[in-house]
Amino acid sequence: MDRFRVTYRLRCAAGEDPAAKAADLAREQTVELPGACLSPAIIRDVVGSIQEMERVGDEVWRVVIAYANTTAGDDLLQYVSLLFGNISLQRGILITDVEVPPVIRERCGGPRFGIEGLRRLVADGAGRPLLCAAAKPLGLSARELAAVCHALAAGGIDIVKDDHGLANQPAAPFRERVVRCQDAVERANVTSGGKTLYFPNLSVAEWDLAERLAFARSVGCRGALVSPLLLGLDVVRHIAAQEGMVLLAHPALAGAYFRADHGIVPDVLLGLLFRLIGSDGVIYPNVGGRFALSRPECEAINARLRGPIEGLRTAFPVPAGGIDVDRIPYWIGEYGVDTMFLIGGSLYVQADLQGASERLVEAVRLQCSTR
Amino acid sequence: MDRFRVTYRLRCAAGEDPAAKAADLAREQTVELPGACLSPAIIRDVVGSIQEMERVGDEVWRVVIAYANTTAGDDLLQYVSLLFGNISLQRGILITDVEVPPVIRERCGGPRFGIEGLRRLVADGAGRPLLCAAAKPLGLSARELAAVCHALAAGGIDIVKDDHGLANQPAAPFRERVVRCQDAVERANVTSGGKTLYFPNLSVAEWDLAERLAFARSVGCRGALVSPLLLGLDVVRHIAAQEGMVLLAHPALAGAYFRADHGIVPDVLLGLLFRLIGSDGVIYPNVGGRFALSRPECEAINARLRGPIEGLRTAFPVPAGGIDVDRIPYWIGEYGVDTMFLIGGSLYVQADLQGASERLVEAVRLQCSTR
Repeated sequence: MDRFRVTYRLRCAAGEDPAAKAADLAREQTVELPGACLSPAIIRDVVGSIQEMERVGDEVWRVVIAYANTTAGDDLLQYVSLLFGNISLQRGILITDVEVPPVIRERCGGPRFGIEGLRRLVADGAGRPLLCAAAKPLGLSARELAAVCHALAAGGIDIVKDDHGLANQPAAPFRERVVRCQDAVERANVTSGGKTLYFPNLSVAEWDLAERLAFARSVGCRGALVSPLLLGLDVVRHIAAQEGMVLLAHPALAGAYFRADHGIVPDVLLGLLFRLIGSDGVIYPNVGGRFALSRPECEAINARLRGPIEGLRTAFPVPAGGIDVDRIPYWIGEYGVDTMFLIGGSLYVQADLQGASERLVEAVRLQCSTR
Repeated sequence: MDRFRVTYRLRCAAGEDPAAKAADLAREQTVELPGACLSPAIIRDVVGSIQEMERVGDEVWRVVIAYANTTAGDDLLQYVSLLFGNISLQRGILITDVEVPPVIRERCGGPRFGIEGLRRLVADGAGRPLLCAAAKPLGLSARELAAVCHALAAGGIDIVKDDHGLANQPAAPFRERVVRCQDAVERANVTSGGKTLYFPNLSVAEWDLAERLAFARSVGCRGALVSPLLLGLDVVRHIAAQEGMVLLAHPALAGAYFRADHGIVPDVLLGLLFRLIGSDGVIYPNVGGRFALSRPECEAINARLRGPIEGLRTAFPVPAGGIDVDRIPYWIGEYGVDTMFLIGGSLYVQADLQGASERLVEAVRLQCSTR
């Protein structure tokens, strides 16, 4: 029987038996019944099978459980539920690695553009990292946000996206904002000869989402910002599969899963799963910014997004936070050119947004031409 | 300006300034820019306003921040993002209470059936708790699951639902399972004179979801099992608003938010937010079962689901885990009759599932007639 493996780190408090905890986990995520209620065939074919188990710390065990590829059927959400649905409500269970059943991988399909496809959409995108910036802050009118977009595009930023707080607020309603911002970016492109893309934020699901997507496409947007944990992973999978738009994924809510001893490690959630559902780039909080990821965690995300996975294109890591014109040469050196840098506050603290963008673009070009 | 308030519990480690942490939070969840980049009008009208702040523990502060009702526009997901999107990636921030902007409340609309509506759908449902059981385990064929449904329905269980692990697996594909299980429950009803309902599990989003919903309705299902954190909260909101089906919500993934010092307290997430989006009943892990909620947390969930909220029907709390025929009189006494009890393993460990269900139903009737 073909199986996929999930690796856990179990923390067992005093008196907790790691073997029993692992066996409970394997039942909880599949049959949700005590062994006495199960037939031998169900126990053999459906309950997760414990493959490896070793003590790796004081109260910590590394456990590998294999599940039949058919356990989740062909539903992505059932696969996610099997990974962490019920055990989220328990304690001391951290998912550190997962395999993806082929049927789920095929149903998802991964990035439709990916690193190579997205490079081709922007100007002179080969051999250098891409630059992304958000139009903000929330509270500006659609006209004011369009002026921000124009300055960023005129300054040479590759992708100008809505701040993820922009939805359909009275100050800048979705349709008016999308029209004005897309138009501003196109005007800047005509003047500069650039190919900056504008990505509106999608923050509704289902039928309203289809309407907003169709509207964004109709006015010329080539991509969108999506928050998979808000929209639902399967909603994003669907957009990627059906809509022909570049998807930049935002990590809103992801931190809930990043407990040191319970949850899903950042590279599995933001790297593997977000790539699987079709993100062409994945924003994550870079070490040194306002958030709590470590350097090894950031590098692990990069590796998941860029590493080979059969049938899936690679995706851009999009580190955000704490990156400015002085620091970007360092980060290019560290993370390499297959990276999209999301620059925020460091541009906005400068009075001249276009000039600040130009200096950043210049710093990137200089660094990449001298490498 | 009309505002809604969010209450946080901030844990400040040594050297962390609680006032600065609260101010950072208020900016992070709105404008995502330093104050120096903001106009006075944006600071006044858009950045969250700190209303209360008091030390409540050794390193712990209670903080109330008010946000303009327009901050999230009319998008539910933007409201959720504002609550915990970016700060999920920080540390030591627990949301303990939230108000809902009227525009979001109206857009969501809450339960379409609720406690009263659901009681009317089942037989003699007044003045007693309802009983729910899951058809399981994963791995059985559709015929075998239908036989389980028949036994539970014949035994008098009010709502027979798919186990939340059942999706579209080869052993029991969605359509075949739904046809057979719905049919089995209807046959049992004809014999018993009962009105048991069968709720299939929906575990896909978007267009596929619409197909599965339409199919379930076409064969007579009156409700469905949904996992809001898998499907997406806005997807569930849409189903509730459009589909005329009873929605029983499953807490899969919810535990990720239940850290003692970081996340969203269970009653806000499972009680308030799940009710807001239209859950007619919300399953939660009862104290004493396999999971980690405390008695006060369970009671707080009950209170959120049943308490008055303008414009929203009440919803059934559905405690699950550790409830059997001997314990159910105790739990009826503790939680009251406006409760739906989800019974699992304690039925299945008995060889005769129908007989076990009958004994449980009888225990409930006896307890409620003698109260």
